[in-house]
Amino acid sequence: MDSDFDFDRYDRVRPIRWTGDTLDLLDQRKLPFAVEYVHCADYRAVADAIANLTVRGAPAIGIAAAWGAVLAANDVEADDGRAALEALEPRLATLNAARPTAVNLAWALARMRRALLGAGADWRRALQREAHAIATEDLAANRRMGALGAALIEPGSQVLTHCNTGSLATAGFGTALGVIRAGVAQGRIDKVYAGETRPWLQGARLTVWELQQDGIMPTLIADAAAAHLMRTGAVQWVIVGADRICANGDTANKIGTYQLAIAARHHGVRFMVVAPSSTVDLDTPDGDAIHIEEREPSELLHIAGVRTAANEIEAWNPVFDVTPHSLVDVIVTEKGVITRPDAAAMRAAFG
Amino acid sequence: MDSDFDFDRYDRVRPIRWTGDTLDLLDQRKLPFAVEYVHCADYRAVADAIANLTVRGAPAIGIAAAWGAVLAANDVEADDGRAALEALEPRLATLNAARPTAVNLAWALARMRRALLGAGADWRRALQREAHAIATEDLAANRRMGALGAALIEPGSQVLTHCNTGSLATAGFGTALGVIRAGVAQGRIDKVYAGETRPWLQGARLTVWELQQDGIMPTLIADAAAAHLMRTGAVQWVIVGADRICANGDTANKIGTYQLAIAARHHGVRFMVVAPSSTVDLDTPDGDAIHIEEREPSELLHIAGVRTAANEIEAWNPVFDVTPHSLVDVIVTEKGVITRPDAAAMRAAFG
Repeated sequence: MDSDFDFDRYDRVRPIRWTGDTLDLLDQRKLPFAVEYVHCADYRAVADAIANLTVRGAPAIGIAAAWGAVLAANDVEADDGRAALEALEPRLATLNAARPTAVNLAWALARMRRALLGAGADWRRALQREAHAIATEDLAANRRMGALGAALIEPGSQVLTHCNTGSLATAGFGTALGVIRAGVAQGRIDKVYAGETRPWLQGARLTVWELQQDGIMPTLIADAAAAHLMRTGAVQWVIVGADRICANGDTANKIGTYQLAIAARHHGVRFMVVAPSSTVDLDTPDGDAIHIEEREPSELLHIAGVRTAANEIEAWNPVFDVTPHSLVDVIVTEKGVITRPDAAAMRAAFG
Repeated sequence: MDSDFDFDRYDRVRPIRWTGDTLDLLDQRKLPFAVEYVHCADYRAVADAIANLTVRGAPAIGIAAAWGAVLAANDVEADDGRAALEALEPRLATLNAARPTAVNLAWALARMRRALLGAGADWRRALQREAHAIATEDLAANRRMGALGAALIEPGSQVLTHCNTGSLATAGFGTALGVIRAGVAQGRIDKVYAGETRPWLQGARLTVWELQQDGIMPTLIADAAAAHLMRTGAVQWVIVGADRICANGDTANKIGTYQLAIAARHHGVRFMVVAPSSTVDLDTPDGDAIHIEEREPSELLHIAGVRTAANEIEAWNPVFDVTPHSLVDVIVTEKGVITRPDAAAMRAAFG
């Protein structure tokens, strides 16, 4: 696919733009009703943009944080990378703390640290080069995963996805949505269903919009309709992304993913997790060790700024869940396909 | 429980009021932000109110339709019930067609027909008496189900419910929510989780509000968070209502119920269906024979009048699903508890 695939036709959206002195982030809080970029001129603005979901999606968060580190260095004077890192460390910690669940954030900042430690007087340039590499490699990895994942899908299939794992969540092309893009382009996927993904509606607001830009028309469903959809026989694959993949193959992803995995297994629908190898975290042994971010209850009590629930009500708003590896049929990274992932298979692939 | 239970304390809401010449329906489209009654002066207004969800919930729909039949007779002149029924039949058909999935609508109208057929010159009064009986019996059935269902729940339990099955969905007290009311009153239930129930948000808007009126404070979750909640061990029972229970014990209920049943079985959480015997339809052999209502895609593309998805998008909006009897631990009706329901157990109880 890599050679003859018309990437431009099926991938028009870019959420992260480095201008040379600002990081411009497509404001995903306002999509699909307004297409506006937020201009971040310093690292604090980047950390805020990550925390408040201006930019979201595990790979995109990592890329944004890398450029945030570049901005953080703007007023740092140092003779070499090691000295620069010492000055930068508190700012990198601020960026790292912006969100807890996706490992790509810490992974990208670790790469930035290593780049600094290996740099001399030209450390500032090394830092920029590394951020650029992180973004470029992500796009290449996504295109590779698209080819690998699509090859698993029988022609004429219909698929269900959750949240947004597309160009909006990455440097471009997307992870799970990259597989779907490639599958549609190759005639393997006839129809795409997208769960709306409460509370933040990444499916309804982002996935649907993003696919529309590329001429792919998905069908939106309520998250709670997924099992009923499977029962009708309408989908053969559930294809999702991941925010962290553990040493035993357990994966953290957007809340609701776990429920889809249980329902998929119940119906004999196959379940594919697509994420770059930067999402694999061999230091986290299993899903129980993952910190699941809980966000403000208000996200569940409002939609698009409109109150949807009674006043003075309690709400529980975990925004990720863990899918145990036993419910995952395949994990696709840019390094290859892991079928029936478990600790041994993960070690063989990434150890 | 029936003898010493303070019903008034735990059950303050009444969605259906017969005034003698109008049927006043608490407008459930506007709750919880406005508490307004719609005054229906003729049967067409009642049919509209059923179709547009001013009144919803399987038992409440049946009761409203019964009063709709009374209103339909206002301008009918007939010497006896049989003649009145002949004149009324097209209007009863209009009421019956207002919504397809809940059997209680057809059941209530069948009772009204029978009452007419047995009536002489006083047919108008017989009609009113029957409507009143349907409502009164529903309330009594709900209180009985509350006692029967709560007795199954271990003290100190936490439960999850879906949609709204409370006073708002019935003549009062509720079905699944009646069991929860009784369980809270008896100290068996410590905590109630409510799924928000997209697209119409019956959980977020109605269940939460209704329980608040009675001093019970539930915790709201996204529908997609239910499996994650179960994985934490937080709930021991899922308790839901039903719109139709088939001859083999398959049940139709609000979209998302099936997904909860699959997740409950996966986690060893028990699954209780609570519905009056009027919901049992022995003429429908199994779930595949149930007509699942699909409503306008626009319900999924807006929330509280605010557009939430990209324009020109397709959506699939089935508003019920079928839970096969194999995933149901108990069905509670006012006639008793059926454990592990199947065709034989259903026949034994209702045949």
